[in-house]
Amino acid sequence: MASDVISSDRVEGTNVYNVSGDKLGSIDDLMIDKLSGQVRYAVMEFGGFLGMGTDRYPIPWNMLKYDTSQDGYVVPLDKAQLEGAPRYTNEAVPDYDETYRSSVDKYYGL
Amino acid sequence: MASDVISSDRVEGTNVYNVSGDKLGSIDDLMIDKLSGQVRYAVMEFGGFLGMGTDRYPIPWNMLKYDTSQDGYVVPLDKAQLEGAPRYTNEAVPDYDETYRSSVDKYYGL
Repeated sequence: MASDVISSDRVEGTNVYNVSGDKLGSIDDLMIDKLSGQVRYAVMEFGGFLGMGTDRYPIPWNMLKYDTSQDGYVVPLDKAQLEGAPRYTNEAVPDYDETYRSSVDKYYGL
Repeated sequence: MASDVISSDRVEGTNVYNVSGDKLGSIDDLMIDKLSGQVRYAVMEFGGFLGMGTDRYPIPWNMLKYDTSQDGYVVPLDKAQLEGAPRYTNEAVPDYDETYRSSVDKYYGL
């Protein structure tokens, strides 16, 4: 029986694909509810070179499904959805306050 | 109002203290329930030098309280409790299967 627990070290760096199998990016970081310990968002890194100009996309954890055949996460997002999705650069990380989180959740229909 | 979400990047490396304010170690990694995204354990690193001989202690997330004055987590564990606590080395990471998790939870009375 496979373990149903995974290390944050292993999640970070894991590739993210769309349902067609195209690579969208990789997971850079996890945003965790301090009190409950619930992972709220996986922050996907997308584009950029040597960390410059990289956009970060917070994706609600529930939207990520692990696919063993691709050894990565699959998210049901198409190109248009990603183009309009909430994102930020490393130089302008948002506060992740209630207002920001609501706007992310709302974008993804949660 | 402070943000109630924290980045895994920031949790990793944070110091852990006992209630007397003695430093016990620091958080190295988080073990996350794959399905629910719930952080089950913070893995505390304790002792060792340059990563050699370091013991790792899985601590149930609920036991860690963040203390802003120490800029670290506080756990209600004394020396004797830590001496008997479940631990492993980097060379022998357990499977974190149901049996292992139950033994950790049981040790901490959960």
